[in-house]
Amino acid sequence: MRVGELAKKSGVPVPTIKYYLREGLLPAGVLTSPNQAHYDDEHLRRLRLVRALMDVGGLSIASVRDVLTAIDTRESLHTKLGAVQEAISQPSAVDLDPLAVADVQAFFERQGEEECADVTESNVTHMLAAALSVARSVGHDHMGDLLDPYLEGLKIIAQADVEYIARQGSRDAVIEAMVIGTIVGDTVLKAVRRLAHAQVSRDLIGDVPPPDDEN
Amino acid sequence: MRVGELAKKSGVPVPTIKYYLREGLLPAGVLTSPNQAHYDDEHLRRLRLVRALMDVGGLSIASVRDVLTAIDTRESLHTKLGAVQEAISQPSAVDLDPLAVADVQAFFERQGEEECADVTESNVTHMLAAALSVARSVGHDHMGDLLDPYLEGLKIIAQADVEYIARQGSRDAVIEAMVIGTIVGDTVLKAVRRLAHAQVSRDLIGDVPPPDDEN
Repeated sequence: MRVGELAKKSGVPVPTIKYYLREGLLPAGVLTSPNQAHYDDEHLRRLRLVRALMDVGGLSIASVRDVLTAIDTRESLHTKLGAVQEAISQPSAVDLDPLAVADVQAFFERQGEEECADVTESNVTHMLAAALSVARSVGHDHMGDLLDPYLEGLKIIAQADVEYIARQGSRDAVIEAMVIGTIVGDTVLKAVRRLAHAQVSRDLIGDVPPPDDEN
Repeated sequence: MRVGELAKKSGVPVPTIKYYLREGLLPAGVLTSPNQAHYDDEHLRRLRLVRALMDVGGLSIASVRDVLTAIDTRESLHTKLGAVQEAISQPSAVDLDPLAVADVQAFFERQGEEECADVTESNVTHMLAAALSVARSVGHDHMGDLLDPYLEGLKIIAQADVEYIARQGSRDAVIEAMVIGTIVGDTVLKAVRRLAHAQVSRDLIGDVPPPDDEN
């Protein structure tokens, strides 16, 4: 297809497509004449992926490039998944509290994980230590205790995620599902967490207004 | 304490504190002279909460004000929790796909929930339908199937959250823990999800590089 048709099918305007081509987010089409290039379904697919990363994931051009590089590397799926996760997890600007870092390390020890002696080595563990640092700065010193039940619940979720990914047909589809599943899944998870809170708080706390003398 | 000491204890500069006072994010201090106001620990606590909402939650001034209004209303904890969740969940600008809306409604029916016939009535369900709409736009039509295992895992997490919240001493501390737990918890959850993915993908997929003939 020509660039006009690619724009129509994807809903992305031609100037934006040309910008992505210049930024290397989309591979060049096959030239059919000096001024005309031909694009195929792989371009359409990649274009939709780029939009999902930017629109839902809120990723910058640079982070999108990191994700695509991770996808295109010749590595095992497990390694690729790790690289994608790193690319979409921005290190936080928060100063790490050494006690929060110790919380993360204690959690890894409880889980029998020997990796990550240095939490700053990975964006993911840095993000975790930063969140616990903020909690500590507002007087919540025991949020680290939540990590174990969180992991227990998230293993059920991760199992469903990985089975979903493995059901995809081609190798390209598996990798794309990994990225979409992680980015879109974060938002889905956030929303469903609110619904789970509502259910559990209704059962545990009940819907009782505060007594009169408390105000 | 004077405003200078409040700044020192909170790490928030005086001009920023004055801005929050003008914006109504922080209640006025008690005037001790025409040019001097006195602040107490409640101000410090509220100031730290405002910073956590902005720095970790990435909330705008307007959203912070919504959260504080929800906190200060005279309602049951369950209702307050719902109001806080609405305030921190921005409705997405994504066009909703009617099929994604149907996914959310089918999920509610499976869960025996009769609420939310209209997903646009709540920011939370709107966010959920928007995420599934994006997934559908990139060819992932079955992500709605993940909602049930997600909820299953998240109930374990919500149980831990609500127990953590209920352990807090005063009524004010409970409400603050709800807000901090939701905002900081989202980031913690995202990070721990990556770690759960790594564990599960290693067990299920293994760390095998692609065969030579696949490239």
